[in-house]
Amino acid sequence: MKEKQDAALVFDLDGTLIDSVYQHVMAWDEAIRKAGMELSIWRIHRRIGMSGGLFVRALGRELGRELDASVVAQLQRDHEEAYLRTVDGVVPLPGARELLATLTSAGVPWAIATSGAHYPAQRSMRALNVPESVPLITRDEVTRAKPNPDLFLAAISALGVSARETFVVGDSLWDMLGARRAGALGVGVLSGGYGRTELVEGGGAYRVYDDPLDLLRHLDELGVRIATW
Amino acid sequence: MKEKQDAALVFDLDGTLIDSVYQHVMAWDEAIRKAGMELSIWRIHRRIGMSGGLFVRALGRELGRELDASVVAQLQRDHEEAYLRTVDGVVPLPGARELLATLTSAGVPWAIATSGAHYPAQRSMRALNVPESVPLITRDEVTRAKPNPDLFLAAISALGVSARETFVVGDSLWDMLGARRAGALGVGVLSGGYGRTELVEGGGAYRVYDDPLDLLRHLDELGVRIATW
Repeated sequence: MKEKQDAALVFDLDGTLIDSVYQHVMAWDEAIRKAGMELSIWRIHRRIGMSGGLFVRALGRELGRELDASVVAQLQRDHEEAYLRTVDGVVPLPGARELLATLTSAGVPWAIATSGAHYPAQRSMRALNVPESVPLITRDEVTRAKPNPDLFLAAISALGVSARETFVVGDSLWDMLGARRAGALGVGVLSGGYGRTELVEGGGAYRVYDDPLDLLRHLDELGVRIATW
Repeated sequence: MKEKQDAALVFDLDGTLIDSVYQHVMAWDEAIRKAGMELSIWRIHRRIGMSGGLFVRALGRELGRELDASVVAQLQRDHEEAYLRTVDGVVPLPGARELLATLTSAGVPWAIATSGAHYPAQRSMRALNVPESVPLITRDEVTRAKPNPDLFLAAISALGVSARETFVVGDSLWDMLGARRAGALGVGVLSGGYGRTELVEGGGAYRVYDDPLDLLRHLDELGVRIATW
């Protein structure tokens, strides 16, 4: 029996539901080297999940010069090409499918909001068995990706809920920052490689879990009522 | 002119002087998948830098079963093979060469202590222009690698200094833990992908710098006197 729910969840995709952050990191590393530039890999990791535009702007700052539009476009193409070469090995994180199925059957509204492009996101949606009816908001749908709140606000609007009752679940500081700017509570997961205290102290995460499986086991801490527990 | 120095430094290698942590992570991921096992990539990342034996024991725990010796040996061979395929792209971290050269010319004793094997470590020593006279302690030289203090104690002994005047510089919790067990002060760098607060609160790091370049600019904070500054 479904209870009346007063909570909604908006999920980031890469590093939150899908184990793809490190492949994205190495794909950016490859693209940056190919362009004859050098950036330490940990600095790439810390930028994953933010909008591509902000990413290359930050890259320019680290390199000490502004990158012109054609260089930026080439970097983005090379990153995408390098990532797609590894994408067959990318799998859902532990508990991701079960978590989403549990929310669906309990009648908890949920959506996905990613700074990534539409095509690889759709591939992930299939791997996660996401029903057609679930809103998917990608960078193609909004003007500004994370840490701007646009993606999360669009997801909240598509669900017809209020930001105040919404938890944004993500693995990066950009998710936590975007959540706060959207007026929602941020819930962190460690599965993208950030540390717990970084997400809490740097991002203001309300709670932090290891991964989707750990979140599934603690849904009650968010006030989500699962009748069939 | 060289001043009398009363500080010594012992450096970890991967993630501290060499930008190789993410390649090691992906090499372990490949080896683990090849063995038909599954482990989230962030969990691999958090284990990098500890002894190979502890790594596979922790892996067994995450997988819920003990791994027998032949499986462990195969995993280690597959990891090494996968890593060596990417090693040509592995470069020193920003400021690493300059930092080491500065210490050498200032007469500050320093050594390298790594949980890795001797052969890839020697390759890194050449990339870093490390003089022959600098002690290199690898897992082949001691019974127990990090976070046991053996590697650091052997390095401290090779330098003929005391632990009390030694800073251990590393990127992982295992370095910080090993430093404390050796009676030395731990200094963290972010270039292995750990967060600042993780190293300070989880590892008891005395100071944390971005990377070798940032440490070089702040050597005075460790009481290291560089006369030619």
